[in-house]
Amino acid sequence: MKISARNSLKGTVKQLTVGAVNTEVVIEISPGVEIVSIITKSSAESLGLTDGKEVYAVIKSTDVMVGIE
Amino acid sequence: MKISARNSLKGTVKQLTVGAVNTEVVIEISPGVEIVSIITKSSAESLGLTDGKEVYAVIKSTDVMVGIE
Amino acid sequence: MKISARNSLKGTVKQLTVGAVNTEVVIEISPGVEIVSIITKSSAESLGLTDGKEVYAVIKSTDVMVGIE
Amino acid sequence: MKISARNSLKGTVKQLTVGAVNTEVVIEISPGVEIVSIITKSSAESLGLTDGKEVYAVIKSTDVMVGIE
Amino acid sequence: MKISARNSLKGTVKQLTVGAVNTEVVIEISPGVEIVSIITKSSAESLGLTDGKEVYAVIKSTDVMVGIE
Amino acid sequence: MKISARNSLKGTVKQLTVGAVNTEVVIEISPGVEIVSIITKSSAESLGLTDGKEVYAVIKSTDVMVGIE
Repeated sequence: MKISARNSLKGTVKQLTVGAVNTEVVIEISPGVEIVSIITKSSAESLGLTDGKEVYAVIKSTDVMVGIE
Repeated sequence: MKISARNSLKGTVKQLTVGAVNTEVVIEISPGVEIVSIITKSSAESLGLTDGKEVYAVIKSTDVMVGIE
Repeated sequence: MKISARNSLKGTVKQLTVGAVNTEVVIEISPGVEIVSIITKSSAESLGLTDGKEVYAVIKSTDVMVGIE
Repeated sequence: MKISARNSLKGTVKQLTVGAVNTEVVIEISPGVEIVSIITKSSAESLGLTDGKEVYAVIKSTDVMVGIE
Repeated sequence: MKISARNSLKGTVKQLTVGAVNTEVVIEISPGVEIVSIITKSSAESLGLTDGKEVYAVIKSTDVMVGIE
Repeated sequence: MKISARNSLKGTVKQLTVGAVNTEVVIEISPGVEIVSIITKSSAESLGLTDGKEVYAVIKSTDVMVGIE
């Protein structure tokens, strides 16, 4: 499926923390750059996520805020 | 301000497209890896965004979906 | 791509309203049941949306609120 | 209360899964068409949700993505 | 309708800015405390929003981030 | 960090409920006016949240819905 969300960043699963309901997925999108995602445990299982698997971090552009120091 | 959103990815503004209400901000977070953000025009002005400015792409972990091919 | 969002409702595009920045997409998911989506104009073009096209309304479960009368 | 969210889909509660903090609500909006919602347990209790109860799935239009195959 | 969103803050419309697609609504929830909302123009019209009207700012608890200085 | 989210409401932490994964934070933004936030437990710890601490409730304008009675 191709989706309307503007951002699809390719990466690999670096860490999976499985909770009762949710799973935290750390995705490395380039050396030293990581994105943390929280999805439901059932979604993580359905996608067959494992350490090292190639995945995409998918983010809607309106969900990306901009900050400055 | 330090914020509860888990993801703060450092990058530089690569492109700014100013609309009537919203501004699209393309942020390069590592060579060849870009994130698109849409914020209100007034926010973009208030932050003083310009091409090449150092910014952060701030994203809540629950707003990051995971996709596989 | 298979995605972690829990809801993928199959339907057809019933109406497209193209604005300067955003496009409003009305998707009929069963006779008389419609879902309204607002995506960026560039996403709508990239997906090649046209009246009658078969699409999916994709929604994260945490974005679905519940109301009662 | 009438609300600004564009989508209010009438349905019935088909399944309730109560967790420690969140409750998963499966809402059937037409025969064979279901939407999964995750809300806080306290909200589910406050609404008095039970199997078969008539409810609305309330979704903002900007939270509906569009996918194609 | 009663809804699962945890926050319903009573206030009055202090300012309405109508755009081509969206309307910005400034809601005063206590003296000197304002919340800015952006909804679609059609929602604003459907709710009959006018200056001084009594409204609620409705916000999901997961959409409230916490910041510290 | 200064952020693009339009709403930053100053308040004090009135109640903290720590769960396995998430923490619920009740913020009093003016006498009798409270906002409930749910953030991850690790974010709450990283921010050093305690009862009475001065914090900001940070909310994107597009996440604020409007309701009328």
